[in-house]
Amino acid sequence: MNDKDKIYIVGHKNPDTDSVCSAIGYAHFLREGGEDAVAARSGDVNPETWYVLDYFGFEPPQLLQDAGGKKVILVDHNEASQSPDNIDNAEIIGVLDHHRINFAQWSPIYFHTEPLGSTATIIAREYLYGDVELPKEIAGILLSSILSDTVVFKSPTTTQEDMDIAEMLAEIAEIDNIEEFGIDVKRAKASIKGKSAKDVIFSDFKDFNFSGKKVGIGQIEIVGFDETDEAQQELISELNAIQKSEGYSLLVLMATNIMEECSRLLVVGEKSYVERAFGKYVKDNVVYLPNVMSRKKDIVAPLEKVF
Amino acid sequence: MNDKDKIYIVGHKNPDTDSVCSAIGYAHFLREGGEDAVAARSGDVNPETWYVLDYFGFEPPQLLQDAGGKKVILVDHNEASQSPDNIDNAEIIGVLDHHRINFAQWSPIYFHTEPLGSTATIIAREYLYGDVELPKEIAGILLSSILSDTVVFKSPTTTQEDMDIAEMLAEIAEIDNIEEFGIDVKRAKASIKGKSAKDVIFSDFKDFNFSGKKVGIGQIEIVGFDETDEAQQELISELNAIQKSEGYSLLVLMATNIMEECSRLLVVGEKSYVERAFGKYVKDNVVYLPNVMSRKKDIVAPLEKVF
Repeated sequence: MNDKDKIYIVGHKNPDTDSVCSAIGYAHFLREGGEDAVAARSGDVNPETWYVLDYFGFEPPQLLQDAGGKKVILVDHNEASQSPDNIDNAEIIGVLDHHRINFAQWSPIYFHTEPLGSTATIIAREYLYGDVELPKEIAGILLSSILSDTVVFKSPTTTQEDMDIAEMLAEIAEIDNIEEFGIDVKRAKASIKGKSAKDVIFSDFKDFNFSGKKVGIGQIEIVGFDETDEAQQELISELNAIQKSEGYSLLVLMATNIMEECSRLLVVGEKSYVERAFGKYVKDNVVYLPNVMSRKKDIVAPLEKVF
Repeated sequence: MNDKDKIYIVGHKNPDTDSVCSAIGYAHFLREGGEDAVAARSGDVNPETWYVLDYFGFEPPQLLQDAGGKKVILVDHNEASQSPDNIDNAEIIGVLDHHRINFAQWSPIYFHTEPLGSTATIIAREYLYGDVELPKEIAGILLSSILSDTVVFKSPTTTQEDMDIAEMLAEIAEIDNIEEFGIDVKRAKASIKGKSAKDVIFSDFKDFNFSGKKVGIGQIEIVGFDETDEAQQELISELNAIQKSEGYSLLVLMATNIMEECSRLLVVGEKSYVERAFGKYVKDNVVYLPNVMSRKKDIVAPLEKVF
């Protein structure tokens, strides 16, 4: 086939598991239909996606940072700002997505979005309800994408169809316990493992000014508190050091357990603000808050009131 | 069911057969799935669509001119400018279309466009490849939509899938000769029948100024020249009257045969311009031009050169 017929299947920038695995899954589907389709990614693969690809024996797809002059199918996004660079000079021949729509193009194309938990659900359906055989490994990465995007079916975006399709995929991929496997996938996000205490604290960190006082709040997502237990003392020491050297009145690290929907806060500095805001005693720099998931809604808002 | 759950399936303004029949076909499909769906139209039904609805025993769907506050699914268009009025205040929950895309919405929805000959092809597929039984009459109006939008498979937008699906629909609708039926549908557009000569001439009319000379060119679409034969003398008389009273240097009515892809021109005034532009003799105010379909490309462009 001529190289100008090559179709690049590519997800959004800063790719997640759904973007990368949907591209691989759909490229295979199209190749089985005789197309010269190749999976691509528009950025570095994150640790969770590495785990998934490695588990099912895939290499990361090729990097496509500049889409100019290429024939592309967008997966897991449709907005130009999220596409690889130079997308305005690409020929977009298709879109498969589950996000909001913000798209314009002069020629009619295949464009399918649906309010489902993941793009992988749509792509899995193409196999499951069509004539193309779904290999075990592709079933595995599509299942992983659904579990990743729906936070193991806990996200409010999860639909019955996501769960039904995941069930079918798990059977083909020979994954016996979907939930357990999903937690393994999310755990692979590796918010802690192999990182310095400083890197963990600043991986997702925001500064605030509450009535003239400097407050810092970091957040990490974990699937079990066992992930932070070992590193806890080191994290508190580092928080103390940062608090003093950077002049924070209050410095907090939220360890949010996405499976149990709660957070453990590591608190240094004027911890009385935290105690008043949440009506809980901070013991040895630690406080547990059930049902707390959102930094903005659950932490910043109540804290700001007591300053 | 609560009235606020009612879903209006509606096509574009100035509705054609595909817009009206796709709405009816998809509303029935959704009702079979338990939804409170109702077909609507955003304007008057044209004679071709009347013919189709009447042939298969349907009434025109209800008029929906203002979509404000309604829950809607758009068929056969996606651009807000083509939707019923007040679409910005409607809740668009789905889109099924085969046109170019120009759409933005903050929440993810079911949105499906595909480069096919008609929206009816997409809706027919939902029935044919799904679990919902396709009634004979719905098969008939969906077939009619495909034949209408593809000009009986002659339009360059026609795909193999349109033809395959039309074949299946014809079997269900018990239409033995698809092509013959398609010509009957297009003939029902009734460019001539029941209209005054003046209405025919001005039904799709454009004024031009070529080097200071006033030129008028009208166009009608027909499926056979027998449609115009009877009215021809009356049309020429009317053209002559208009040419004199309105001061046209040249006045032309194109009767374009969409089945045979050619045009017959009725010419009054300074017909020598037409003769020079096309290298043909205008005999008794009439000239036949093979392969001429487009007023802009095939008539205006060559004419302008000789003025």
